[in-house]
Amino acid sequence: METKIHLRDGDIPRQWYNLAADLAHEPLPPLGPDGCPISPESLLKVFPAKLIEQEVSPERWIDIPEGVLELLLRFRPTPLVRARHLEQALGTPARIYYKNESVSPAGSHKPNTAMAQAWYNKQQGVERLCTETGAGQWGCALALSCALLGLECKVFMVRVSFEQKPARKTMMQAYGATCLPSPSTETAAGRAVLAEHPDTPGSLGIAISEAVEAAVSDASGRTRYALGSVLNHVMLHQTIIGLEAKKQLAMLGEKVDVIIACAGGGSNFAGLAFPFAADKASGADLEIIPVEPLSCPTLTRGLFTYDYGDIAGLTPMLPMYSLGRDFVPDPIHAGGLRYHGMSPLVSQGVIEGLFSPLALPQTECFRAALLFSRTEGLLVAPETSHAVAAVIRKAEQAKQEGREKVILFNLSGHGMMDLHGYDAFLNGSLVDHEIGEEQLAAALAKLATHPPARF
Amino acid sequence: METKIHLRDGDIPRQWYNLAADLAHEPLPPLGPDGCPISPESLLKVFPAKLIEQEVSPERWIDIPEGVLELLLRFRPTPLVRARHLEQALGTPARIYYKNESVSPAGSHKPNTAMAQAWYNKQQGVERLCTETGAGQWGCALALSCALLGLECKVFMVRVSFEQKPARKTMMQAYGATCLPSPSTETAAGRAVLAEHPDTPGSLGIAISEAVEAAVSDASGRTRYALGSVLNHVMLHQTIIGLEAKKQLAMLGEKVDVIIACAGGGSNFAGLAFPFAADKASGADLEIIPVEPLSCPTLTRGLFTYDYGDIAGLTPMLPMYSLGRDFVPDPIHAGGLRYHGMSPLVSQGVIEGLFSPLALPQTECFRAALLFSRTEGLLVAPETSHAVAAVIRKAEQAKQEGREKVILFNLSGHGMMDLHGYDAFLNGSLVDHEIGEEQLAAALAKLATHPPARF
Repeated sequence: METKIHLRDGDIPRQWYNLAADLAHEPLPPLGPDGCPISPESLLKVFPAKLIEQEVSPERWIDIPEGVLELLLRFRPTPLVRARHLEQALGTPARIYYKNESVSPAGSHKPNTAMAQAWYNKQQGVERLCTETGAGQWGCALALSCALLGLECKVFMVRVSFEQKPARKTMMQAYGATCLPSPSTETAAGRAVLAEHPDTPGSLGIAISEAVEAAVSDASGRTRYALGSVLNHVMLHQTIIGLEAKKQLAMLGEKVDVIIACAGGGSNFAGLAFPFAADKASGADLEIIPVEPLSCPTLTRGLFTYDYGDIAGLTPMLPMYSLGRDFVPDPIHAGGLRYHGMSPLVSQGVIEGLFSPLALPQTECFRAALLFSRTEGLLVAPETSHAVAAVIRKAEQAKQEGREKVILFNLSGHGMMDLHGYDAFLNGSLVDHEIGEEQLAAALAKLATHPPARF
Repeated sequence: METKIHLRDGDIPRQWYNLAADLAHEPLPPLGPDGCPISPESLLKVFPAKLIEQEVSPERWIDIPEGVLELLLRFRPTPLVRARHLEQALGTPARIYYKNESVSPAGSHKPNTAMAQAWYNKQQGVERLCTETGAGQWGCALALSCALLGLECKVFMVRVSFEQKPARKTMMQAYGATCLPSPSTETAAGRAVLAEHPDTPGSLGIAISEAVEAAVSDASGRTRYALGSVLNHVMLHQTIIGLEAKKQLAMLGEKVDVIIACAGGGSNFAGLAFPFAADKASGADLEIIPVEPLSCPTLTRGLFTYDYGDIAGLTPMLPMYSLGRDFVPDPIHAGGLRYHGMSPLVSQGVIEGLFSPLALPQTECFRAALLFSRTEGLLVAPETSHAVAAVIRKAEQAKQEGREKVILFNLSGHGMMDLHGYDAFLNGSLVDHEIGEEQLAAALAKLATHPPARF
């Protein structure tokens, strides 16, 4: 039996799947600072029209343009792999599969939406994109996509990651992008944070403020902003992962029981899970688990409400689980999971009972990642290690119950550029950062002053 | 037409190809310090018996054990990819294909032989392997292979790379290996070099001495040495690359005209080229090009003679092109190409006219790598950039001649853990290190005092 299932180029999915079409409730609209729903038109300075259209689309299927497919075919379809050696090490009757998104040139799933976003911007005559990045995966993906299409690219990188990972900066520069640490002195948002907290490690919320400001303040009108997660169109673009996985599982005749992915802003989780969530919404017996760090437990301990996506309140308010936009998580090594909010579609899926979130401590995740590397070979990203740890928990549960469960997870990225955390774990200096009760209460109390969600 | 050609797991080659069977002359034997051929038995303290058997085997085809295949299937077969976007950027009528060995868990072709060597050692009851590494690709590959089989692993890493690439050390440690900078104070060979040159950047020749000494001096007899290049059995294990590529080209109906790979010790070059060299030896019209750095031009400016593989003279003398065992190349960023010698089989292939070596300056190579990354997406290793630069030269030549050549190269590794050189190139501090005439003359004069080869 094959260990790796490849699709041919010609079998790449030609439409994205939109979960909004299958949710029990119509998604809530984003709100402006006045608490009223914002019009799609008001976002035209930030995003190209086609992406705004996708953001609010109720359509179940949306065609992938040929130009986007051509970009994606540089690395897609990605392989589905059976983790047979991990199964053996665990002695579990479960069959474990992973979708290997680490084979992309940027090393993660992020190019799935970066390429699409860059392409739509290019079509509309945009010449430059601004963005933020946490661990650097998204920044590299957008830099790559801009290079392939001849666009300029500017990346605000969360300072703690910028300092831990100089190679990420070089990679973005190799793709022709500009990369600077956030908070920076280039934006009013950055300067405001630096004035109050000169030693801040930064956060995705801060970096988003800076990138949005840099985009909309360009008087030429040729600059737009690109976001690597959270928004509906980003989730949409990522669904190609799960759509491919469905084809690959069908080739094997496998019926999946458990789906697992880590969740920071939600994009790699949504990418794998949404196409399966449609089946669950229709009654399929399926457990779908977004995994987050205990130090930033948005889905498990946050509130579902309206909140801003960034720290400065430059974005619309989104209906989502949040820990509060000025919550700055401890500097855990899974930089991509350090976000106060969560994709509205993922959040609503939790509310509607489609997804069952789980929060894990980082030492358990690194331990799981080491076992994975010493059995399967691949060294996964610190973010992905959260998925691996949850997989191991479920596989051990299957062993106790003596059940042949089929577990599928998203190997969202490799960790070859993120070895700082492994180093800390191996030398014993890594500790678990669980959110403090007082910190949580303070964050949520602030949140409660925002307009409540209308579910 | 497909861009990526995948073989199924079941199509993985089941035999390695041995070029020795198709050379015009029988390969010369290794010599001991007395100038006499050494007996295979004298190597039993260094290598397991099966690998020594392969080292001297005249057989054309050698079976790959099932246990090795199971290890290799973690990432093999690797894809053959058409570099269509690079072709378009060059406006060349040439069709450019690459074998993508960067998809291995260690990021390069090195696990092809690391897994085989670790497996044969394990079969013979060996418990610990010692080795050296330059850029870190080989050390990571052996650490990975040892982890998968439960062997201990100790890696002496050339100091300049050790300092430039802390992430490589962490990766080896994640796989459970010990990694230390060479020259070290742990061996007599290391201490001798440090006494004379305390600030030496190190070299592969020095690190090999240390690793061999550490292996043979273990009184328990449970430690062996593993080499990542140069030796015949290493070339043998790598031929799975070219054997797969042949199947993949046949699926496309393509007939290849030019084969290109970088050459340090020769293993990724041999891996791709040897199965095609058999056709060339039988009269096929085919250009096969090993590419080396101008700063370490072993094949283009060295002598074919007998020389030691390491600096201390602990290895047998091998019949090969060499710049002299105490030649320490400038610290160019392609650490894997900083070796004074060359695989005896590759060397003899050059002598017999099968291969046409080319030496390139590193700035041309980094420029080529940037063009590749901005068209195809993948950021290649600094070593691999030499192959890319040669490919671009040949593709431009095809354009001038208006000929539809088919060019195949080995994408031996990605550069995501080797971005130091890219950083230097991008900030303008990278210069070309051509070997000085005086330095070369001095190195070759020393060499001439060694016993001459008998061709």
